[in-house]
Amino acid sequence: MSTQNIFDNQTFFDGYKALRDSDCNANDLIEQPAMRKLLPDLSGKSVLDLGCGYGHNCIDFVKRGAVGVVGVDISEKMLAVAKSESADEKIRYINMSMTDIGNLNEKFDFIYSSLAFHYVKDFVAFSKEMYSVLNPGGYLLFSQEHPIITATVDGKGHFNKDENGNRISYTFSDYNRSGERKVHWYVDDVIKYHRTFGDIITALAKAGFVIEEVCEPVPEEWAIEKLPTMAKEYIKPNFLIVKARK
Amino acid sequence: MSTQNIFDNQTFFDGYKALRDSDCNANDLIEQPAMRKLLPDLSGKSVLDLGCGYGHNCIDFVKRGAVGVVGVDISEKMLAVAKSESADEKIRYINMSMTDIGNLNEKFDFIYSSLAFHYVKDFVAFSKEMYSVLNPGGYLLFSQEHPIITATVDGKGHFNKDENGNRISYTFSDYNRSGERKVHWYVDDVIKYHRTFGDIITALAKAGFVIEEVCEPVPEEWAIEKLPTMAKEYIKPNFLIVKARK
Repeated sequence: MSTQNIFDNQTFFDGYKALRDSDCNANDLIEQPAMRKLLPDLSGKSVLDLGCGYGHNCIDFVKRGAVGVVGVDISEKMLAVAKSESADEKIRYINMSMTDIGNLNEKFDFIYSSLAFHYVKDFVAFSKEMYSVLNPGGYLLFSQEHPIITATVDGKGHFNKDENGNRISYTFSDYNRSGERKVHWYVDDVIKYHRTFGDIITALAKAGFVIEEVCEPVPEEWAIEKLPTMAKEYIKPNFLIVKARK
Repeated sequence: MSTQNIFDNQTFFDGYKALRDSDCNANDLIEQPAMRKLLPDLSGKSVLDLGCGYGHNCIDFVKRGAVGVVGVDISEKMLAVAKSESADEKIRYINMSMTDIGNLNEKFDFIYSSLAFHYVKDFVAFSKEMYSVLNPGGYLLFSQEHPIITATVDGKGHFNKDENGNRISYTFSDYNRSGERKVHWYVDDVIKYHRTFGDIITALAKAGFVIEEVCEPVPEEWAIEKLPTMAKEYIKPNFLIVKARK
């Protein structure tokens, strides 16, 4: 279990939970709507949710007809919320690093992951691991922070503003230097891993996945009405979403 | 033939030829070495080179064993150089827009294109066209300007420098606004088309291509020794290279 468990840090956990509870965040306004549009038919399917957090998507998968869902998360605190808010007899929550899924000795029809893969150090090995626990014909759908956003080593990737304070452009660096990134997010030294777009797609392709769709979602009209600053998200990509099949 | 034919503008042609002749440019130091590494075995194969320019790669494909090469370019001036510098009985040079390849009524084992696809307006239709002229088991290998580089609408994507004049970061904008970009490159109003990563990969996948490798090449040590400023190309991606098969 080499993956950092930042979500069990109380300061981080509290800050993150407040953000997600607000429902005015980029996850709820951009990433989650785009992910839902790419979901395959789940009726009768078994699902593995990697970095399931509060388990909200696990519950949704059951509503969509999944016969069994395994929600994996490295954070006990997150899973405590999941077991309380998102319990269902068809869902099992397991506290482990998602890179250890080979130990489950189980295969799935669908692997889902929302905004967790940028915490994985070795994506080449992890892609092979995912391929091996997926049934033939099964789908992988995941989102992660966009490589342009994870790129900058000193954490100083940023919007630039005009004289009226309007966001007009985005500055980044270090795109072609893959590896660890320590960023401040509620607490110091949250560890993420930067990979280029090419490294991500190539790792999946070489593991055997057939890439079906790649998406860098933008806020839709309703989201911009809810949070007008979201319109400025047309300046840069925020998330990378990949749908692939075995 | 809706594609702009900027290469037949004399000012553009002269400026571009001087750049390529210098052999100290990003094409020769970054893009071409990376493309060569991804070439499939060409012995006994038929090849289509889209935007073949001076025909240097067409000659190389013959040396690698290709039995027939069709070099397509929209510019008569470029093809005049090709027919003079890169003539071979196995090569036919055809003056046409690459989006008209369906009119060739011919199929190929390998489609190659270096730095030309950002001139194509409708990449969804073009991807289907390429798929239809490729033989089963055949490969597509292409490079284009990276979406981060084509993004900025007003042409003001740029490096930022520190107080000593060293490049330290890159600023861009308008990533999620796909469409036409007019830039100054030797002459005004050179027309390119910006597309996101996602749009490019998804268009290929939906056309039927299996993505094998995506690469955003960086200069190797020998290239940095030849042109030390190339080291700063680790800041941003320059080119997007995709290898796919039918």
